[in-house]
Amino acid sequence: MTEQIRPNNLQGTIQCTSHKTFILPIRVYYEDTDAGGVVYHSKYINFFERARTEFMRQIGYELDELAEEDKLLFVVRSISCDYLLPAKFNDELFVSAEIIEAGKTRIHFEQKVMKADDIQNQSCITLAEGKVTVVSVDSEKFKPKRLPSQIMESIKSVI
Amino acid sequence: MTEQIRPNNLQGTIQCTSHKTFILPIRVYYEDTDAGGVVYHSKYINFFERARTEFMRQIGYELDELAEEDKLLFVVRSISCDYLLPAKFNDELFVSAEIIEAGKTRIHFEQKVMKADDIQNQSCITLAEGKVTVVSVDSEKFKPKRLPSQIMESIKSVI
Amino acid sequence: MTEQIRPNNLQGTIQCTSHKTFILPIRVYYEDTDAGGVVYHSKYINFFERARTEFMRQIGYELDELAEEDKLLFVVRSISCDYLLPAKFNDELFVSAEIIEAGKTRIHFEQKVMKADDIQNQSCITLAEGKVTVVSVDSEKFKPKRLPSQIMESIKSVI
Amino acid sequence: MTEQIRPNNLQGTIQCTSHKTFILPIRVYYEDTDAGGVVYHSKYINFFERARTEFMRQIGYELDELAEEDKLLFVVRSISCDYLLPAKFNDELFVSAEIIEAGKTRIHFEQKVMKADDIQNQSCITLAEGKVTVVSVDSEKFKPKRLPSQIMESIKSVI
Repeated sequence: MTEQIRPNNLQGTIQCTSHKTFILPIRVYYEDTDAGGVVYHSKYINFFERARTEFMRQIGYELDELAEEDKLLFVVRSISCDYLLPAKFNDELFVSAEIIEAGKTRIHFEQKVMKADDIQNQSCITLAEGKVTVVSVDSEKFKPKRLPSQIMESIKSVI
Repeated sequence: MTEQIRPNNLQGTIQCTSHKTFILPIRVYYEDTDAGGVVYHSKYINFFERARTEFMRQIGYELDELAEEDKLLFVVRSISCDYLLPAKFNDELFVSAEIIEAGKTRIHFEQKVMKADDIQNQSCITLAEGKVTVVSVDSEKFKPKRLPSQIMESIKSVI
Repeated sequence: MTEQIRPNNLQGTIQCTSHKTFILPIRVYYEDTDAGGVVYHSKYINFFERARTEFMRQIGYELDELAEEDKLLFVVRSISCDYLLPAKFNDELFVSAEIIEAGKTRIHFEQKVMKADDIQNQSCITLAEGKVTVVSVDSEKFKPKRLPSQIMESIKSVI
Repeated sequence: MTEQIRPNNLQGTIQCTSHKTFILPIRVYYEDTDAGGVVYHSKYINFFERARTEFMRQIGYELDELAEEDKLLFVVRSISCDYLLPAKFNDELFVSAEIIEAGKTRIHFEQKVMKADDIQNQSCITLAEGKVTVVSVDSEKFKPKRLPSQIMESIKSVI
């Protein structure tokens, strides 16, 4: 209940969120920025997906294996994102993924893009926050497909 | 009141929306797709921005000139998008932009990604629909900046 | 021999190249730029592909139909690009595709990214130029596959 | 002469190249792939830049600080890339950056995209290899600017 889920190689990164939240560090490269000098707004949506992919890996699931062996694909059904502060070139961001709710074929995530607060050491400021709903579909027919019970249990253990 | 706003070179494209809505045709290239075989979900957010940019050009404003001459930049404050049906490689899409409301520093858009319906000729099916709020900011200080009255009038004429 | 190949809806655009060269106008949006204020360098490679796709459409081939019906896919074998001058946000670019040589399974393109020269009316300046070699492969086995004779003839007619 | 340059957090990754070569592990996400089921070809060019950025960080230089404090920007002058084997969704790639030569305002890199060879343990297969030339320019005037002697020395120590 109280520990944070994250990859082994992230030990030592700063604490940015509460329990049961997965955090992926992401470096901002030139490809992520636009002529306004900041990270292009749709890139945050990509960052969200990177964090969800690493979250699934962390709890034991490789998305390529699910697609090939279990014919299970997660497709995005809806997204929303509020932009609070801009991220810039070369920033080290911390992108979170937290499962809020899971149904038979749906998983609801809350996600944030954060950055270390230079003034308040060991804490984070939130640059953007959003919600993403993914639906599990059959990877060939593209029709909704019930989440296998094993995945459902893994997910419930981290809600 | 009843005519559609669109660029001169789009004459002859099918009717996909009601009045006061700008429509930009966008071809799907490989760069827009992912290994799921469909258009990657964050790309719709890029398509939305292309349509907003062309909408502004259509009503008389070039965003690069606004940034340089008027120090006015539009930054995205929030987005949401529902994904209904997938777009595929080589599809010709029609991306709409409609201003729903405009405040002193904010413009609210409703936007859709559509595709010609092969069965019902002359009509469209909606693949995705979303809302985008942009804020006008000073292009140097990055602080909210009131929309110039001329732009406000142009916008009001198309709401 | 002497006329230029281009889509019907581009009639009237300025002359930027010699005969047998296809030209696609491409508008630069924010998504294409980076924090240096210019178009991100790998985006030119995307622009090249858009122009090759439209070139193939112009001479009668839809790449999605070739993949599904003829199991024929074009994959990029090599690219090179020299960057001469930067393209900027909101620029209208003209991207060319010209077939230089075609073998049994290979097509060699020369491509340019150009822009109207504001000073010398009716002429263009070259911002980038590159070469791209694509290989025709079986869309399922991913092995080289001989170009169908009909495509080969179409290609030869535009070399 | 004989040791490999890489970030501390990469300790333990497999050996993929000879001495003086920097290696950055990069995970392939859906955003990097296309409908052909493989990594989109221009994405390798982005991966190359990520590796060059991390290389510069490794030898002591943050590109955002160089741009702001030293008014020094590196712009890409030319690229070339040969595609040998496709990378796929979820692959863990190893992207190398090696400086081959450095002049007053130019740095020539050789770069590879590699992947662990499942059969031959501890070795790598090369998926793509390319060359990139960057030019140092004044970040405001966009004119070539001589590399500061300190950077030149750092670079010479890793050639």
